[in-house]
Amino acid sequence: IEAESNSEIKAWMEPLHPADIAEIMDELTMEEARYVYLLLGGEKASDVLIEIPEQDRKRFLKELPPELIASKFIEYMDSDDAADIMADLDEDLKKEVLMEMEDTEQAGDIVDLLEYEEDSAGGIMAVELVSVNENWTVATCLKEISRQAEEVDEIYYIYVTDNNDKLKGVLSLKKLILNSTGTQISNIYNPDVISVSTGARQEEVAELMDKYDLVAIPVVDDIGRLKGRITFDDVIDFVREEAERDYQMVSGITGDVEPGDKVWQLLRARFPWLLIGLLGGIMGALVLGSHESELAQVTELAFFIPLIAAMAGNVGVQSSSIVVQSIASGVKEIESTWKRLLKEVLVALATATIFAILIFVYNYISQGNMNLTFSVSISLFIVIIFASVFGTFIPMLLHRLKIDPALATGPFITTMNDIIGLFIYLGIGKMFFELI
Amino acid sequence: IEAESNSEIKAWMEPLHPADIAEIMDELTMEEARYVYLLLGGEKASDVLIEIPEQDRKRFLKELPPELIASKFIEYMDSDDAADIMADLDEDLKKEVLMEMEDTEQAGDIVDLLEYEEDSAGGIMAVELVSVNENWTVATCLKEISRQAEEVDEIYYIYVTDNNDKLKGVLSLKKLILNSTGTQISNIYNPDVISVSTGARQEEVAELMDKYDLVAIPVVDDIGRLKGRITFDDVIDFVREEAERDYQMVSGITGDVEPGDKVWQLLRARFPWLLIGLLGGIMGALVLGSHESELAQVTELAFFIPLIAAMAGNVGVQSSSIVVQSIASGVKEIESTWKRLLKEVLVALATATIFAILIFVYNYISQGNMNLTFSVSISLFIVIIFASVFGTFIPMLLHRLKIDPALATGPFITTMNDIIGLFIYLGIGKMFFELI
Repeated sequence: IEAESNSEIKAWMEPLHPADIAEIMDELTMEEARYVYLLLGGEKASDVLIEIPEQDRKRFLKELPPELIASKFIEYMDSDDAADIMADLDEDLKKEVLMEMEDTEQAGDIVDLLEYEEDSAGGIMAVELVSVNENWTVATCLKEISRQAEEVDEIYYIYVTDNNDKLKGVLSLKKLILNSTGTQISNIYNPDVISVSTGARQEEVAELMDKYDLVAIPVVDDIGRLKGRITFDDVIDFVREEAERDYQMVSGITGDVEPGDKVWQLLRARFPWLLIGLLGGIMGALVLGSHESELAQVTELAFFIPLIAAMAGNVGVQSSSIVVQSIASGVKEIESTWKRLLKEVLVALATATIFAILIFVYNYISQGNMNLTFSVSISLFIVIIFASVFGTFIPMLLHRLKIDPALATGPFITTMNDIIGLFIYLGIGKMFFELI
Repeated sequence: IEAESNSEIKAWMEPLHPADIAEIMDELTMEEARYVYLLLGGEKASDVLIEIPEQDRKRFLKELPPELIASKFIEYMDSDDAADIMADLDEDLKKEVLMEMEDTEQAGDIVDLLEYEEDSAGGIMAVELVSVNENWTVATCLKEISRQAEEVDEIYYIYVTDNNDKLKGVLSLKKLILNSTGTQISNIYNPDVISVSTGARQEEVAELMDKYDLVAIPVVDDIGRLKGRITFDDVIDFVREEAERDYQMVSGITGDVEPGDKVWQLLRARFPWLLIGLLGGIMGALVLGSHESELAQVTELAFFIPLIAAMAGNVGVQSSSIVVQSIASGVKEIESTWKRLLKEVLVALATATIFAILIFVYNYISQGNMNLTFSVSISLFIVIIFASVFGTFIPMLLHRLKIDPALATGPFITTMNDIIGLFIYLGIGKMFFELI
């Protein structure tokens, strides 16, 4: 590919979308990628830079002189992307790049944006937007929009403000076009605008935009002045990342893992939960060890250890996942904690009854030891109910304590339930074999 | 709330967003909700209907006469929403509603849309869009858009077609406004338009829109004629649902579960995987039963059954989740199957070595039986490697066979690995205690 014929590469990349170029870059070496970058025009180079994965971007930028970063990338970007990229740079490099920027307005915007918390509305918004004054006419607006639109990729909505920059409402381009040029904006805009404050959390923003199907949402400061807007693409990314995180949590993986990762990265992400599993296993061994004499007398008791542990684990994961998902999807707590626990108990009672009977029938048919048959069925019944309630209660408790409830899914709940399940099983087994 | 003062309720609901009204409705009884619906104006009533959960909507519509469904809801809806709702109705009711519709064009569109597969681009697109002819001028366009825009909620993009209705390109409203009224469209539109065919799968559509950050994507038929468009809100819902489905799969829950569901719904969703867990447990009991004499002689062997089972299960779930997630996120298969398996083996080797040493140290310190200490460590080593490879291989195989790989996460992989892990453990234990 790299036969160094600059003009050919250039001509070939011209019609490609930045996202596609980023994908191609991904397969090039550092050297090659850098070479290709310098061939790209400013606007395109910066668009491509946004599309490549964060880690590659960091490594790439580290190699470049600050004035090049400023002139070739940051100046062409939307303020939100620029701020994101700058936030990843080292303090010194960041300052140097800001100094090198010719567009001081853009530099100022970036500094402002960097002030906000990274996962607040202020931290993800872009300052580029189209706003008009409520006192203008449609004609003035169209002229003003032409001027402002140069900096904005897509307009989506036009925000209407008063003389103090306070957000008054929203206007669609459609409405603007459908009205005669003499109409005053204050007569046609929609005052029911949904906005968020700069301090709002990303989750809230995503929830609002999803609920009201918004392409973009305006961000205002504490006294209602329009500060920026957040567009749907930021929110799609966030929704996807959140879902992936919960998924990984329940699978016992910490941190972001991709199949392209190196061996040690995969190892590091998988290690913590496996360690918990190991500790749980050791505790299980201790529980069993403390019942050594029963196990020695009645070897059959050991046969159903995996069954009890597996059922306890599975039921626990199911219960905790349902709770975590309902919390994540922002379901309003129409049902009180107690009502939810009560329902979980009902579900657990039904599940426990069904499975206790199933295993009873199996054991009754397959062999004659009635003590074992009763021990297993009764233990399974109790274990399922306990695991359900425990799996529901723990994430709810964590949520109350403002700890991420997803922590309580997957390996943690499985391990806990395994141990407690064994304890219950052996206790009941002991009772049966000693009593009768 | 229901003091029956119609005008008050009406006045109170007027400024509310449909999504908010839908939430309030959710807490009313059927009777009350119906009453409130009939108070709402047509446009708003249909917007609210789209927002309420599918199940409630079905129940609600069943109670209404067909002519009311047609005149009060379907006529006001966008074609995609109307088709979705119609698809849920019984055949007879569907026909009756279509017959009752006064807007025959809308009825025709709905019939056309119902022809497409539900999860294809054709099945999710709306026919409402704004399209202009490439030979028109900006002035003609603006006039034409004013006419077309009445049927379209949000314009987003203007699609440019030739005389045969074939999609030629795309034009933003911004560009239209920025150009003088005499300019011909063919000189200003962007011919690099990304479109999908009516037969494209929902996943593809979501991937394209996400990759290129599109608010809307045009849908064309096999010869390139513009048929409809899909907007971002449909895709956000899809992305969210997909993620939820995978999450539930790994948690051992089938079907869509919400905490508000009834007890029997929750039970039904949880039953299948628990049954697999039970069968796995019974198979585990059989495996242990076949090693009864060893267990009777060396009771301590039983102590580490939960540890082996838990580690096998956890490692397997981690491996399978990583594969499933990479498939779901549409990562291109840069790495070949063999390369990925090789890497998994490396990760597994490292993990297995670490944990085998850890458990060896524990057992060495805590007690003297060297046979048991060696058995547990060596088994754990083998089990971890086996579970990793198995957990990676099975979902990849399913994917090849065009079966949803997510089926192989959670309880299935855990159960399989549990049983095989026990088998390995007892086999090795037997060897050690007999040999030495």
